Amino acid sequence: MRHIRVIGVGAGDPGLLTVEAVKALRSVEVFLVLDKGETTAELTAARQAILERYLDTYRIALIADPPRDRTAANYEGAVEAWRDARSMAVEHALRTEVGEKGTAGLLVWGDPALYDGTITMLDTIVARGQVPLKYDVLPGISSVQLLAARHRITLTRTAGAVQITTGRRVAAGHHDEDTDVVVMLDAHLACERFRGQGADLYWGAYLGTADEVLIAGPLDEILPHVTEKRARLREAKGWIMDTYLVRRGGSKPPV
Amino acid sequence: MRHIRVIGVGAGDPGLLTVEAVKALRSVEVFLVLDKGETTAELTAARQAILERYLDTYRIALIADPPRDRTAANYEGAVEAWRDARSMAVEHALRTEVGEKGTAGLLVWGDPALYDGTITMLDTIVARGQVPLKYDVLPGISSVQLLAARHRITLTRTAGAVQITTGRRVAAGHHDEDTDVVVMLDAHLACERFRGQGADLYWGAYLGTADEVLIAGPLDEILPHVTEKRARLREAKGWIMDTYLVRRGGSKPPV
Repeated sequence: MRHIRVIGVGAGDPGLLTVEAVKALRSVEVFLVLDKGETTAELTAARQAILERYLDTYRIALIADPPRDRTAANYEGAVEAWRDARSMAVEHALRTEVGEKGTAGLLVWGDPALYDGTITMLDTIVARGQVPLKYDVLPGISSVQLLAARHRITLTRTAGAVQITTGRRVAAGHHDEDTDVVVMLDAHLACERFRGQGADLYWGAYLGTADEVLIAGPLDEILPHVTEKRARLREAKGWIMDTYLVRRGGSKPPV
Repeated sequence: MRHIRVIGVGAGDPGLLTVEAVKALRSVEVFLVLDKGETTAELTAARQAILERYLDTYRIALIADPPRDRTAANYEGAVEAWRDARSMAVEHALRTEVGEKGTAGLLVWGDPALYDGTITMLDTIVARGQVPLKYDVLPGISSVQLLAARHRITLTRTAGAVQITTGRRVAAGHHDEDTDVVVMLDAHLACERFRGQGADLYWGAYLGTADEVLIAGPLDEILPHVTEKRARLREAKGWIMDTYLVRRGGSKPPV
């Protein structure tokens, strides 16, 4: 039976790996890497920086990532179709690149528990039953945790709650009205909708990298600045990775 | 100016420290440890296990933690009063135990961003202005992340959201009705209220320690078992640390 290790490598900086994640890297014979093409060249370099910092030698098997339809009206359906195709590609690589009793590694940015499809993909392969495998998961420091650490804030206030959600859900009004909100995967700064509520915004881009940018303050005041900065960074670099916390004045205390 | 390092050490296992947290430990001259008395003897031992694994020598300054009124009707008020007293005790220790340009460390279980008062306490000391200091924060792997990793689940489903909240808020009905919910600081398994909703429960106790216990399944079916197991563990050990995710059948998808 093949053994897969899902290794959370944290949000960019090799120093964010846990000691057990480093140990796990050393147990891996081959790293399966989904190649998403030129847009992620920088992420590929970051992955190599991690492997080179902790390993003398390593082997990578590149897997062409199936294209994903980001314009589909049925967002969940499109994601499912893409995941199916991806799981077939990974299953094929397991067969051809990993010995029957071998150990393969899948590196996950941040934490495999937050907006990452690796666990679901492996469950799909297990359910299909064509390639017997077992897998374990090592948690990693997510960009959300780094956001909080860099701004020196807590995500949860005394007796409070926090919701972690997507830009898409916030744009659709499906966010929690009563608590602070962390937004990930937001292509368009959906926090625009929190204007006029006395909220504070803690924003961070490229967290854990040398290009890290942090901005915080009253949302109404700083949002134009964040919007402009974000557009400039995206233009200059070709891509942006950002996340933020909206802290709301009116958070409801418990009874 | 004194330098304080707030170091998230993860949920128990020394292997959960990040590489940068280990490096931070090595920069610390004295660790300020709030001594909560005999009930946390096991946690004190776990802290020593971390320091002994990574440091040849270290110095600890014990600070008597002020008692906290857990029976107060005004929960937030009681927490505030306790935090004030605690910040005074830490301020005193900074003055007496740390040189004017020295570096002190505060170890935080899990992640300083989740239900931990260290950052707020330091902000209180900074605001008081009696002992000039600067501080930085290093994130750690929280018990919530370990819960997800051990159960090999994600906290967020495709296009979904998750709320992190307290047992107290759930018991009061102040939880999110539309998303999956992670519950921390729950003295009485408030998830009782999710019965009859077709929800799944992923429960974990003593995560990251040798005594780790995991139970998962349909909430309606397993809750009696979890309740009994939890009571027995608490009785046998004298204390319990647990957290859980409630995954709800009816989670609302985005538009």
